[in-house]
Amino acid sequence: MADEAAVRAQAEAVRRLKQDKADPDEIAKEVAKLLEMKAQLGGDEGKHKFVLKTPKGTRDYSPKQMAIRERVFNAIITCFKRHGAEVIDTPVFELKETLTGKYGEDSKLIYDLKDQGGELLSLRYDLTVPFARYLAMNKITNIKRYHIAKVYRRDNPAMTRGRYREFYQCDFDIAGQFDPMIPDAECLKIVHEILSDLQLGDFLIKVNDRRILDGMFAVCGVPDSKFRTICSSVDKLDKMPWEEVRSEMVGEKGLSPEAADRIGEYVQLHGGLDLIERLLQDPKLSQNKLAKEGLGDMKLLFEYLTLFGIAGKISFDLSLARGLDYYTGVIFEAVLLQQENDHVEEPVSVGSVAGGGRYDGLVGMFDPKGRKVPCVGVSIGIERIFSILEQKVEASEEKIRTTETQVLVASAQKKLLEERLKLISELWDAGIKAEMLYKKNPKLLNQLQYCEDTGIPLVAIVGEQELKDGVVKLRVVATREEVNIRRESLVEEIRMRTSQ
Amino acid sequence: MADEAAVRAQAEAVRRLKQDKADPDEIAKEVAKLLEMKAQLGGDEGKHKFVLKTPKGTRDYSPKQMAIRERVFNAIITCFKRHGAEVIDTPVFELKETLTGKYGEDSKLIYDLKDQGGELLSLRYDLTVPFARYLAMNKITNIKRYHIAKVYRRDNPAMTRGRYREFYQCDFDIAGQFDPMIPDAECLKIVHEILSDLQLGDFLIKVNDRRILDGMFAVCGVPDSKFRTICSSVDKLDKMPWEEVRSEMVGEKGLSPEAADRIGEYVQLHGGLDLIERLLQDPKLSQNKLAKEGLGDMKLLFEYLTLFGIAGKISFDLSLARGLDYYTGVIFEAVLLQQENDHVEEPVSVGSVAGGGRYDGLVGMFDPKGRKVPCVGVSIGIERIFSILEQKVEASEEKIRTTETQVLVASAQKKLLEERLKLISELWDAGIKAEMLYKKNPKLLNQLQYCEDTGIPLVAIVGEQELKDGVVKLRVVATREEVNIRRESLVEEIRMRTSQ
Repeated sequence: MADEAAVRAQAEAVRRLKQDKADPDEIAKEVAKLLEMKAQLGGDEGKHKFVLKTPKGTRDYSPKQMAIRERVFNAIITCFKRHGAEVIDTPVFELKETLTGKYGEDSKLIYDLKDQGGELLSLRYDLTVPFARYLAMNKITNIKRYHIAKVYRRDNPAMTRGRYREFYQCDFDIAGQFDPMIPDAECLKIVHEILSDLQLGDFLIKVNDRRILDGMFAVCGVPDSKFRTICSSVDKLDKMPWEEVRSEMVGEKGLSPEAADRIGEYVQLHGGLDLIERLLQDPKLSQNKLAKEGLGDMKLLFEYLTLFGIAGKISFDLSLARGLDYYTGVIFEAVLLQQENDHVEEPVSVGSVAGGGRYDGLVGMFDPKGRKVPCVGVSIGIERIFSILEQKVEASEEKIRTTETQVLVASAQKKLLEERLKLISELWDAGIKAEMLYKKNPKLLNQLQYCEDTGIPLVAIVGEQELKDGVVKLRVVATREEVNIRRESLVEEIRMRTSQ
Repeated sequence: MADEAAVRAQAEAVRRLKQDKADPDEIAKEVAKLLEMKAQLGGDEGKHKFVLKTPKGTRDYSPKQMAIRERVFNAIITCFKRHGAEVIDTPVFELKETLTGKYGEDSKLIYDLKDQGGELLSLRYDLTVPFARYLAMNKITNIKRYHIAKVYRRDNPAMTRGRYREFYQCDFDIAGQFDPMIPDAECLKIVHEILSDLQLGDFLIKVNDRRILDGMFAVCGVPDSKFRTICSSVDKLDKMPWEEVRSEMVGEKGLSPEAADRIGEYVQLHGGLDLIERLLQDPKLSQNKLAKEGLGDMKLLFEYLTLFGIAGKISFDLSLARGLDYYTGVIFEAVLLQQENDHVEEPVSVGSVAGGGRYDGLVGMFDPKGRKVPCVGVSIGIERIFSILEQKVEASEEKIRTTETQVLVASAQKKLLEERLKLISELWDAGIKAEMLYKKNPKLLNQLQYCEDTGIPLVAIVGEQELKDGVVKLRVVATREEVNIRRESLVEEIRMRTSQ
């Protein structure tokens, strides 16, 4: 149990960390500790002993944040629909066994539900495994679909960098037996379109192929049984220097130093068609069947990407590994390039904003007869994108409207509540977005101020004289212009004045 | 453990139930048992021991179902926005203690997460309690917001009637200290607008007030301590006859038979302004302060509803109680009236499709100082509405498109993959929704068939001659009309032909 002195000491520690501009994760950790201590201590009157917060690693979205989020969703959905995708939805939890054995080392991050009698359930960890389960269950062998939903990972949150325990994934996948690299190229085109649309600054899409990686491991002398675990180590190269990754391979994972050094040479390589051609000539790699297949397909992919006009943003990168177990072919990851942005004081390191790849074996893991459905897909990392845009909006001081209200129904004198109710009802029934203050006798000034605060462009004012004359006074908030409109023309007038 | 003979017997039992058209719930239960037995036994090759299903009480949404669902969401969101609502989002789980003590007898239906170290969490049971937590946490005293998200209840599912363990709620709430009954009337107007928009057939909105109920209990001689539990019994009147409810009150809950009989007389009453006036004159009820307050406000509410032109669909009904503990004033519930629908063979009993009420004390339960924020809100029961519309679509054989693709990029000869890729990329970049088959050399017939199957209205055909001439052949799928369009005019032509 914490005592009050301890709480005060902890509060002081937090204050100092903030003052010193310490690592945000560090601050978050100490704040959490403080909140927990406060919770143990209980509220002021010892009356409310609970903590008023969202669970660790989660957050609420305020109306303003939702407005930004919906912009991002719209850009993404528009793109997915442009590419002819259908949409599906699946439950937020799956049978625990559905998720078992799909995520390798990451399985420990899965949220389980409490056993309250009945089935054992887990929250979904991504949208790909539920998609594969859906295909197998419904015997679908051919679909192009998107799915936008929340997924759950008991990871260490780093909320300032957009890493949460509950977060949205926006997935687009193409399932079916098709000619090589055509759907794969479309997935990369989609990433390119979305990142361009959202104007997040310069970006690069790294691509590699699990077959090239496996071929590379083979020719470097990695034993078969260590392919996956060494692959996990390579995956850390975006966060750790090679020396650390190497020592993990040799020290923790028991790889020979020679094999590690050979890998070290390959994973430095990145480029375009030229590099593919060079590796196709590589005396060792070209002898490996898997690597040769992967490189052949990579060449084809780059040809298609050139036709799409996007090859310039794509980098074939041998250090790209991707953590998940289920990939079998092409893999890719989009990263934002560090931008010199004068508006933003402390540029946030955002890392990967999209990723995906080919997983030809996953559906077969669910099919009772093991029938395979080849799949390739992409997942857009919406939370990170959202963090960046939110920060941009803050910096630009752009005023974001959180409602779409076209007109406020107001009154100039007292005792006009009934008239306001009648008018607003007419407007609603005509499809006009209208609000009124929930007061019997609001002051006109307060009504106008409400429009200023919330960005409502028009005010429809009823007064005694207007009622007698069969008109409504329409006021344009921005210009203060006022004009009397005949009641029967009001709807048309509001529509005209608020159409963009 | 099940053996094969037992599985066969169970399969036979299921077959017979289906043949006898037994109660769908019953069938579902026996099918679940069968699946479980099969799972225990293992797959054909003993290789896949898991069950390929979604968790009990949940379902996937196919693209066709999603198309219907999005129509419903659009109607609802359009209405919420018409009334000037902002939108928020909260996490799918809350701290367990946040939900504690808010749901009365229903608390046992809350899903808990497993204790994996860290906070104790539960899946949200509705959107109202998270909303109240959000208000208290952010010290918001004034907001009109909607929230559309899934909630979770470990109830007995009745999926044919649209009752699931995971289901969407569409909530609209108005928080703030306002003049009486104005926001309450708007909530009812919203229900009226949405149900009218969705064309679900005739409906009725029942209203009552917790204060009238409590006053009624008091004058009938119910002891204070039994108000909530007797209220729960009254709530069952839509599913049970009065005699059963009475015996629950007297037998299980220890109410005197006289008190029960007095309640029995009141709860038969329903009507409009006339009934309100009559009860305001009721010698016993009019002496009760709470009841009098409630009746006064009910009168005001009906005046506003009359101004909104919707009083005809509203019934003041003394048997309406609503299960949840947190209501403090007006409560309401919309029910569809049994319709004679020739198209539908077996009309589904759908019951309540919307409900809500005033809860002035809930936010205060979260505020450290107990500060109250009065709230009133409505929740639209989207799953039931969705069930009805899905059935309507089935019956009408309306063909629902699941994509918005405007044009298929096709080729008339072989070896034109590169040309198709170039053209489709141009179209995508111009914002045209376009697809192509993922084959190197698809047959023209297959490409046209794909358009027929998926409802794509146009085909842009590249052929050698067209390429030479700098044109694309545009085919209208419905009429088979074909016309050569200059490449530079193609985007404009597609836009024109597919604009509604």
